[in-house]
Amino acid sequence: MSGEESFALALCDGRVYTLWKELVDKLRGKAPLIILPEGENAKELPVLRRLWKKLWQYQVDKGQTILCIGGGSTLDVCGFAAATWKRGIPFVSVPSTLIAQIDAAFGGKVGINFKKGKNLIGTYTQPKAIWVYPGFLHTLPPPALRAGWVEAYKHALIEGGTLQEEVHSTSFRTIPSLELLRRLVQVKERLVAEDPYEEQGRRQVLNLGHTLGHVWESLSLQTEKPLLHGEAVAIGLVQELYVSVKRGELAESFWMNVVGKWRTEGLLLPLPPFTWRIWEKFLLQDKKIRDGRIFLPLFLQGGRIVLSAVSIDELRFSIKAYKELIS
Amino acid sequence: MSGEESFALALCDGRVYTLWKELVDKLRGKAPLIILPEGENAKELPVLRRLWKKLWQYQVDKGQTILCIGGGSTLDVCGFAAATWKRGIPFVSVPSTLIAQIDAAFGGKVGINFKKGKNLIGTYTQPKAIWVYPGFLHTLPPPALRAGWVEAYKHALIEGGTLQEEVHSTSFRTIPSLELLRRLVQVKERLVAEDPYEEQGRRQVLNLGHTLGHVWESLSLQTEKPLLHGEAVAIGLVQELYVSVKRGELAESFWMNVVGKWRTEGLLLPLPPFTWRIWEKFLLQDKKIRDGRIFLPLFLQGGRIVLSAVSIDELRFSIKAYKELIS
Repeated sequence: MSGEESFALALCDGRVYTLWKELVDKLRGKAPLIILPEGENAKELPVLRRLWKKLWQYQVDKGQTILCIGGGSTLDVCGFAAATWKRGIPFVSVPSTLIAQIDAAFGGKVGINFKKGKNLIGTYTQPKAIWVYPGFLHTLPPPALRAGWVEAYKHALIEGGTLQEEVHSTSFRTIPSLELLRRLVQVKERLVAEDPYEEQGRRQVLNLGHTLGHVWESLSLQTEKPLLHGEAVAIGLVQELYVSVKRGELAESFWMNVVGKWRTEGLLLPLPPFTWRIWEKFLLQDKKIRDGRIFLPLFLQGGRIVLSAVSIDELRFSIKAYKELIS
Repeated sequence: MSGEESFALALCDGRVYTLWKELVDKLRGKAPLIILPEGENAKELPVLRRLWKKLWQYQVDKGQTILCIGGGSTLDVCGFAAATWKRGIPFVSVPSTLIAQIDAAFGGKVGINFKKGKNLIGTYTQPKAIWVYPGFLHTLPPPALRAGWVEAYKHALIEGGTLQEEVHSTSFRTIPSLELLRRLVQVKERLVAEDPYEEQGRRQVLNLGHTLGHVWESLSLQTEKPLLHGEAVAIGLVQELYVSVKRGELAESFWMNVVGKWRTEGLLLPLPPFTWRIWEKFLLQDKKIRDGRIFLPLFLQGGRIVLSAVSIDELRFSIKAYKELIS
């Protein structure tokens, strides 16, 4: 990190500022501070409107840079405000959660939710710089740290080899080193560089576990204790791997190895209540159905990930298998 | 124009739809129609929000294209809605005014006004196609047609040669041919191609007449009969050319030639009421001042256009010269 840059405005998640006041104040220097609502609550049109108003009040101009500090949601809305202010001003992102440090802050996706639809409004806009400081993770609640490790695990599955072994054998209560963070980010950056605007399907392997994960995440928003994004992806990942097992394209032992890791980390969480009708409605919000099949990336033997047509019944079957696993 | 493309949604200026119902219905085919408020009133956050809501209601997806029909303001807000919906969906622009057909629809600038500041929120996003149909100009009110010719004149000044002669000798009540529209657009497209994101100053020659023009446009918004954009640019252009005359860098006869054309077309309009204090405030909203000077493109002898530091006093002097001209 560098404290040398001068910023026109600093935008920071409220929780992060409470915990890291001194560091944030050092980074922002003389830049006025705007505090944002915590987490996903920040990704709403009224918050975006408030940010535009602040950019207007402080007369932020094209030559100036703004500083954005927080988790993935904070960086999403702040990055979108910067991307659209005077047709785009530079911004520096400082991710404060594990998931943002290895995933959300990278790839250039910025935006907000709309009418309960995730990321319906947004652009692809790269920050000028991303400053990663693992120290933030010491104040992250353990469930959020663990949820971040799930995305790390997904990146490690995509990469395979020693990275996969290393993440598998690391406790999800560990604060990763800057070196490990760098290796995990590189998995995403490589895929993003190959397909920056998601036009060629190369980035889609990053959706591993996310098709079903998003359904559980959305369903759980209706409950008293919503799942964290990473917790929902953990469920989705085990279920989607099972589709490959059932097809005979992945060894059951590989799947059981992941299940065992999840069990150790307490990630085999109960599913939010649902009926199959509602489950299907949420599934199809996200994905298009063609001839009763939807397309998602499947992890196959040897580590290949292939975009495949999967039937609704295959997905239902894998959910039933998951239910038996946790019963 | 082509009626073969299929659209997910058609957005059209209310005035244009009333006048060109049959054509618009043919172009949109089965696409649902959304009517927008006329002109600059469309470039507001509530209208943008309504467009996002329609995109949501009709579940418009990344593979689908929307159709946008109207003047520059309509195309600006519709293009921005498309640019930000699901991180960008394709749109086809159909400009219905002269100014949009040679200028506003081209160059990829989309966006809305914010807190009375013009184009404060926006992006650079190119439409998939721009369909130009000169027939629309037959129903354009004569002042709007004339105002469009002012921008044509500016493009012709930039280009010089036969284009300049042709536009100078054409009545501003004429409907231009498709061929002439094409030549006028090419002036802008060439400059945009050299500097798509306005990073190198190449596009700034397009601001000829606009520094002072914007001031008169903003000031006149407070009056009962606001100036059209092109009318304000006409005033600004004559005044900014005078700066070069006064510096001895442009022949007075060249300037008088433009003044004569303006007189013929009834474009030497009275200035909106102002005090120098308020005039300066509006001037500096748009431009940054450095050591009492601001930078604007100046048209010099031989047709060269150079970004120059101009003092506030030089601008005041040229306004006084304009006042004498019309008194």
